Amino acid sequence: MTNTVSDEGLDLLFREARSMNGWLDKEVSDEQIHAIYELLKMGPTSANQQPGRFVWCKSKEAKEKLAETASEQNKKKILTAPVCVIIGYDLDFHEELPWLFPHADAKSWFEGDEAARKESAFRNSALQGAYLMLAARALGLDCGPMSGFDQDAATKAFFANQPRYRADWICSIGYGDRSTIFPRSPRPEFDTFNKLL
Amino acid sequence: MTNTVSDEGLDLLFREARSMNGWLDKEVSDEQIHAIYELLKMGPTSANQQPGRFVWCKSKEAKEKLAETASEQNKKKILTAPVCVIIGYDLDFHEELPWLFPHADAKSWFEGDEAARKESAFRNSALQGAYLMLAARALGLDCGPMSGFDQDAATKAFFANQPRYRADWICSIGYGDRSTIFPRSPRPEFDTFNKLL
Repeated sequence: MTNTVSDEGLDLLFREARSMNGWLDKEVSDEQIHAIYELLKMGPTSANQQPGRFVWCKSKEAKEKLAETASEQNKKKILTAPVCVIIGYDLDFHEELPWLFPHADAKSWFEGDEAARKESAFRNSALQGAYLMLAARALGLDCGPMSGFDQDAATKAFFANQPRYRADWICSIGYGDRSTIFPRSPRPEFDTFNKLL
Repeated sequence: MTNTVSDEGLDLLFREARSMNGWLDKEVSDEQIHAIYELLKMGPTSANQQPGRFVWCKSKEAKEKLAETASEQNKKKILTAPVCVIIGYDLDFHEELPWLFPHADAKSWFEGDEAARKESAFRNSALQGAYLMLAARALGLDCGPMSGFDQDAATKAFFANQPRYRADWICSIGYGDRSTIFPRSPRPEFDTFNKLL
């Protein structure tokens, strides 16, 4: 096993990757979607909570349903993308901990404390969403993450049968059209937002 | 530019990487810490908010101060690690948006809405923490993320001069001692937590 990712890999994951606003007319296969999940699920979550719940909208109908919940400028980014995934979470993820974290009674840590569950589900599903984006990039795809949509409306539309799930943010995935990206926004120097003690 | 990360790179980032509980006696240099940040800052955040605030505790004094805020089982994981980083966020990140997102008046979107700022800072700093962990792994390091510590105590101890910053979670970084890892917890099948529509 190599112990670092190559410079080209770092470019692909971080340095040259960009959030996309438009997409080439090139399908993302079901196999690619599964491959993204197979990688993202390996990423660490607190006590292996795996609170993320993912709805991959690939059909025209699913994308239209999601677009109805989105801001005007995001509708097109959803409808024209090969796939747009909803990153949601389960407020009752602790019910799954007996099998996800079998070596301790982690379920009991969260019982009766919905505020703690909300915080943990929100934080750890966001981590999983970041793993999702980096996994997609690692597999040669581009991402277009968005938070401009109506979370409650999407929750109702896509999680009607899961009353404890919540839609949190969304991310289009495909082969990006580089002519649609904005100029790279400025990045901070280390000392701006870091302290090294 | 290559368009996928190699299989060995995917192993390093996702498939073979593990959260570490103990560390080899091998320093993490200041240059490595800067290199992690140079990668993580390239990852996408909503409107380039970059709400993450990072305190890299490397000196004995800094690690001891952080360990005082941690649960018993995490104290040793902090004290014995080469570095332990606090992932925090700025509730007033919007004050920075005029230079971070110069092509729109994004600051105005958040003015007077502390709840929206809290939600966005929390979500996007979590994304940045995930980028941090994957960047560290990409550079050959191991991570040990933890949420078992007193956020308020750490906020007071490390952000006393930044009254709008909050400590959210922590992550030890170094060269992991593979004899300290737990057996890999189960990972879900695709259909368990995903829908493909």
